[in-house]
Amino acid sequence: MTNPTTVTAEPGVPFIDIVRDFDAPPELVFRAYTDRDLVGKWLGPRAYEMDVDHFDARTGGSYAYTHRDPQGGAFGFHGTFHSIAPDLVVQTFEFDGYPGHVSLESARFEPLDGGRTRVTTHAVYQSVEDRDGMVASGMEGGLTEGYERLDELLPTLAASSAS
Amino acid sequence: MTNPTTVTAEPGVPFIDIVRDFDAPPELVFRAYTDRDLVGKWLGPRAYEMDVDHFDARTGGSYAYTHRDPQGGAFGFHGTFHSIAPDLVVQTFEFDGYPGHVSLESARFEPLDGGRTRVTTHAVYQSVEDRDGMVASGMEGGLTEGYERLDELLPTLAASSAS
Repeated sequence: MTNPTTVTAEPGVPFIDIVRDFDAPPELVFRAYTDRDLVGKWLGPRAYEMDVDHFDARTGGSYAYTHRDPQGGAFGFHGTFHSIAPDLVVQTFEFDGYPGHVSLESARFEPLDGGRTRVTTHAVYQSVEDRDGMVASGMEGGLTEGYERLDELLPTLAASSAS
Repeated sequence: MTNPTTVTAEPGVPFIDIVRDFDAPPELVFRAYTDRDLVGKWLGPRAYEMDVDHFDARTGGSYAYTHRDPQGGAFGFHGTFHSIAPDLVVQTFEFDGYPGHVSLESARFEPLDGGRTRVTTHAVYQSVEDRDGMVASGMEGGLTEGYERLDELLPTLAASSAS
């Protein structure tokens, strides 16, 4: 039974809120979000390859990566890490294909009973139109698939950190 | 006659929009916004000292500075530069006294007739409450005074770049 992904986008405000639980403790989920090599193993749709140009997940760092689909399409993304703390990542996000439109995203990692984690993501866009465009782009499908890949990755991290 | 500062904060959305013209060309105004030493000469209220810890105004860079008031109060701010282009600066912003509340600000530099510049600033907050709190903090007074200091600084830059 897959954990559900809840996406909320209220009309008239430029926010997207996402809640997703994971069957692993916060320190592992945080590591999967902030380790350059691990991010490349789960972020985005399953059929995509991810080339990480740089991914410097520290306060004041920056990142850039490219997703490549099986048809040869390339989709670049870049931004900065405003802050990185064990329970919170705040970063900017821009799709190279829609330049000049930037969002600010925060992901909070909260422990749940049973060694599980709730990740609460709050994204804010520069306009309601930008937010509506992101929702209309079908982001929810890629998001949900990425989370499922993360579900599959986390047990391997748990095993390697126990050894 | 001072150029007016127009601040707009529509109810129910987390935006602040600011428009201000300057009697100097875009490249000088841009320099005043992005040069570490120049920023310290105009940003913020006149009575404040500004200590710049770092100010790396390039795409992917970061900054931190402290304003000190005459009573000995210290107000720290930090963030990242998501992107820096000759006509656009996009940065994050966080007041150390209100941690965990981050905004995303863009400043666009547009040429006007007569070698003048319009700076259009769009700030977006993580909630409408954060935006309302920023407006209630009296930010408009410090903002207007900073712009007046910039009015005074720009002729000295024009003279030094002409020499």
